[in-house]
Amino acid sequence: MKSEIRILGLDDAPFSFSDSSTDVIGVIMRGNHYIEGVLHDVITIDGTDATSTCEHMIAKTRHAMQLKAILFDGATMGGFNIIDIDQIWEKTKIPVITVTRKKPDFEKIQLALQGHFSDWKNRLDLLEKGSLQKIRTAHNPLFIKYKGITLAEAKEIITLATIRGAVPEPLRVAHVIASGISRGESYGKA
Amino acid sequence: MKSEIRILGLDDAPFSFSDSSTDVIGVIMRGNHYIEGVLHDVITIDGTDATSTCEHMIAKTRHAMQLKAILFDGATMGGFNIIDIDQIWEKTKIPVITVTRKKPDFEKIQLALQGHFSDWKNRLDLLEKGSLQKIRTAHNPLFIKYKGITLAEAKEIITLATIRGAVPEPLRVAHVIASGISRGESYGKA
Repeated sequence: MKSEIRILGLDDAPFSFSDSSTDVIGVIMRGNHYIEGVLHDVITIDGTDATSTCEHMIAKTRHAMQLKAILFDGATMGGFNIIDIDQIWEKTKIPVITVTRKKPDFEKIQLALQGHFSDWKNRLDLLEKGSLQKIRTAHNPLFIKYKGITLAEAKEIITLATIRGAVPEPLRVAHVIASGISRGESYGKA
Repeated sequence: MKSEIRILGLDDAPFSFSDSSTDVIGVIMRGNHYIEGVLHDVITIDGTDATSTCEHMIAKTRHAMQLKAILFDGATMGGFNIIDIDQIWEKTKIPVITVTRKKPDFEKIQLALQGHFSDWKNRLDLLEKGSLQKIRTAHNPLFIKYKGITLAEAKEIITLATIRGAVPEPLRVAHVIASGISRGESYGKA
């Protein structure tokens, strides 16, 4: 795999209780260092529009044809607005990887969903799609799901997209931008 | 000079006739590749708050003590909201460089200012502060002004902060983010 492949990282902005929507930032990087473009859209907090909004962001960018992978920070955005990674793969035919540093606790998530949403079962089904894999990186283990590629390819993409710490650069930079816009100054995850 | 120095690039977002304010994005990079942080604030279009807003962004970032230079895309933001680079240097004691690819046409600028602002003379005086220097880069000449460093240091900072094209990375990335946020997808300058 070439080290200069284009990868899109998508992350949401931090929000507060009084907000009804939040920003989604997409960062297209070549390999792990050169920023090609930045995408922006808005989703509803605890809504059901994250999948379609992200699909739309991917479909309309002029970089779409060059993208070799789409990275998400887990499969939720804007609270419990859940990303259907199978559907994003089906619609875009670009491989999708979700990355988290902590292993999701599905029992806890189920309780939270049941307490807040009449459609909790749908949301839980979406979240439980795909098999979670623990992979080793230079520093820490990561938990990933992937669609449209092999585990070996997913690992290779994560390795080539990461400079330091555990988070691939397109996701780290998307987070830095999203939190900078929302708060005036970014606070990173490393 | 170390190649890993921290540099802040500040740029405004594109805006339309109906807007009264626009976003200012700051990008703090280590050398030409690693994004340390993103800053965000808002200025008035054709207002007089660009200098104080940028000062405030610089003063409050937790990276302030590490910054070795502040780069601007010319000395105007949000239309004719003019940046007083002398004042930013006086207040922050961080060297300031303005960078443009075209030589500013001060006669044309004066006419535009006279047609729109009762305080046009103040704005023109700010814009005419400092001496404009033409420098050679790998691709194209750049026109710069600088305060708080020597011409040789300013050139060195621009060279180490640039990957390709003429625009130093902190400014290029600030522009990509600002235009991505404003338009949904960024359109670069290269």
